[in-house]
Amino acid sequence: MHVDRDRLRADVEANAAFGEIDAPEGRGRTVLAGTEANGRARDRLVERFADAGLDVSVDAVGNVAGTWAPASADPDAAPVAAGSHLDSVPEGGIFDGPLGVYGALEAVRALRADGFEPTRPIAVVCFTEEEGARFGGGMLGSSVATGRTSVEEALALTDGDGVRLGDALDSIGYRGSGRLDASAWDAFLELHVEQDTRLEAAGVPVGIVTTITGIAQATARIDGEADHAGATPMDERTDALAAASEFVLDVERAGRERALAGENTAVATVGGCDVRPNATNVVPGAVELGVDVRDVEYATMEALLDRAERSLDRLADERGVETSFARDLDVEPAPMSGRCREALAAGAETAGVESLALHSGAAHDAMHVSRVTDAGMLFAPSRDGVSHTPREWTDWDDCATATRTLAEALARLAGR
Amino acid sequence: MHVDRDRLRADVEANAAFGEIDAPEGRGRTVLAGTEANGRARDRLVERFADAGLDVSVDAVGNVAGTWAPASADPDAAPVAAGSHLDSVPEGGIFDGPLGVYGALEAVRALRADGFEPTRPIAVVCFTEEEGARFGGGMLGSSVATGRTSVEEALALTDGDGVRLGDALDSIGYRGSGRLDASAWDAFLELHVEQDTRLEAAGVPVGIVTTITGIAQATARIDGEADHAGATPMDERTDALAAASEFVLDVERAGRERALAGENTAVATVGGCDVRPNATNVVPGAVELGVDVRDVEYATMEALLDRAERSLDRLADERGVETSFARDLDVEPAPMSGRCREALAAGAETAGVESLALHSGAAHDAMHVSRVTDAGMLFAPSRDGVSHTPREWTDWDDCATATRTLAEALARLAGR
Repeated sequence: MHVDRDRLRADVEANAAFGEIDAPEGRGRTVLAGTEANGRARDRLVERFADAGLDVSVDAVGNVAGTWAPASADPDAAPVAAGSHLDSVPEGGIFDGPLGVYGALEAVRALRADGFEPTRPIAVVCFTEEEGARFGGGMLGSSVATGRTSVEEALALTDGDGVRLGDALDSIGYRGSGRLDASAWDAFLELHVEQDTRLEAAGVPVGIVTTITGIAQATARIDGEADHAGATPMDERTDALAAASEFVLDVERAGRERALAGENTAVATVGGCDVRPNATNVVPGAVELGVDVRDVEYATMEALLDRAERSLDRLADERGVETSFARDLDVEPAPMSGRCREALAAGAETAGVESLALHSGAAHDAMHVSRVTDAGMLFAPSRDGVSHTPREWTDWDDCATATRTLAEALARLAGR
Repeated sequence: MHVDRDRLRADVEANAAFGEIDAPEGRGRTVLAGTEANGRARDRLVERFADAGLDVSVDAVGNVAGTWAPASADPDAAPVAAGSHLDSVPEGGIFDGPLGVYGALEAVRALRADGFEPTRPIAVVCFTEEEGARFGGGMLGSSVATGRTSVEEALALTDGDGVRLGDALDSIGYRGSGRLDASAWDAFLELHVEQDTRLEAAGVPVGIVTTITGIAQATARIDGEADHAGATPMDERTDALAAASEFVLDVERAGRERALAGENTAVATVGGCDVRPNATNVVPGAVELGVDVRDVEYATMEALLDRAERSLDRLADERGVETSFARDLDVEPAPMSGRCREALAAGAETAGVESLALHSGAAHDAMHVSRVTDAGMLFAPSRDGVSHTPREWTDWDDCATATRTLAEALARLAGR
């Protein structure tokens, strides 16, 4: 089967132009869900779907599907789906998400060019707001498609400026109708960049995911007293940023200890930090922190969140701050289906490439999908393991190799 | 001499309406220099100057002066000036600044009503951008009026959005001409809220400042690596926020140690903290921190800045981050003039109120003015010592008492 590396590259590069940022260190983009850049990226995807002869549908939360249902396919058979997302984190890279969407499209194009006759329809899917960088939480489109979040709840979510997702989708013309239903799929495969160094270190071009780590996110709030930085003696302060700094270090320490205690799969991060009033000459009065913990074991995640809460309790005692801790997201670890893993392994073999079984430290839409049908994931190598930065990079040959593996696996799942 | 408490209150309260914020805990405002709220506050001041028969002038950086030069005053004599500022920190209080401007105006109105015949002109002054909350640094208007900063430098300063001070002043109609020259003044007095609890604790309504502490500000920058919060193992991170957290705690510790070693006059604060990309699911890549250190002794300030720089060096070694430390503001401690302190003490005595000699932990425009002419400051009590917050409060009786003291002191300095 022939995957067209240059066509795939042209698609990913054209997509990279939307929300492009000036980044001397690499190629970056900021494509938050429902923004104008996201709208243009979606428009181009829909055009490419149409060029490839796929039937396009857009659901009420903006999930886009392009379905290939040739005469060979039983129109009543449960489709096989593959895809990922087009949104990015602020100042993110160009592969995280788009490779999975355009890789799936290229796989379908390759299957058709190869004369493959599927017995089931094959759908290429683009989920809305996977990163959660604008409306919070993350993996929103797949959460709706799997019935975890209702359409109404999702549309009512607001961004930092109070804009509702529904209105943002309206503004770019992607508030469609109905609900993409992942439970109606026979199977789902997601191609993604690894975002770690294991493939690179092993010199293997394709990773087949065993389990996706669970992910929990929370917002920690610390209230002290805003006061004059010159006129308030050191012993009369309730400095919210100093308290927050202890919290950040406590969370980091807890993550390190749990990582050492296990197989280096546990992580704990404070990624967001907003200070008020945030002026050099004012003792900080309030700080809000975004906390993220993950592991392949749910018990470890619980232990990390508990450590974070106890840190806040200690700070309330020792520094007189007021604290709160609100859970925003709570997703259990997700094992991938044996059938999908086998299809991917066989696909790699047919494609003539080596593959490696590994866990995913990052959450993906496949995680939600795995709760309602058989799901599998394959990884392409990430240079230096970095992602969510303009330095994110996957060689075009590796993109094509993984896409070939995906196409072979789809042929197995959608074949006779 | 009769100071009209209710007229003074009406002025301060009318001024508080500009940039007013919703603050259940008190009365707050956000009036950054050159904003529309600042423009309206200035318009009202100019009207009140005119109502009181003062000649109004606006210099090239927006410093406003209203001069009372009745027939008794030698038009060639060096004027006596009094005033403060109208801008605020974000979400600041309603007294910090405006009390000194409207108190000086009320003092002049009281002197005139009392039949006082000055031998020198008396000028009421409002300096531009004292807080430094928009264009950085602080005490900008008095810095220009004392020749420390040139008009051109000041006008070219930009805010966080790249807007130049010159353009901001143009947009509100307060880019005047010429330069207010503080060195031409015979003396300058500034009435301000104490922002500390010493007057309240002593039950004394008027404080007379001995020395204003020096102030140094710097920007610390910490660069790590932005990376995926799920896929990057704990031992492969260069987390800029975790490093910044150690820095914040090092600065706090240094401030506490120096305060204990001296007479509790030293302070060290990290008031500003901006994280990039600031998303919960991304390991922070870069953090910028605003550092503020103050003391009555310049050597202590130097020692605190040195501690901050050594903290960054340690973090570069231990965490592999890149750091930089840029000095933004450096003002030595400023003793007040003996002549002004005596006039204020005598003024309090004539007004029949007790006064207390104390240092100022906050910087004020009087600090710059003290380098070029005789300067003095008096404080009114701050409830609970708080300021730069909507909870900032000074009783109206105390406002009037301090204003009476100011009027008596002005009579001494501008009399025969």
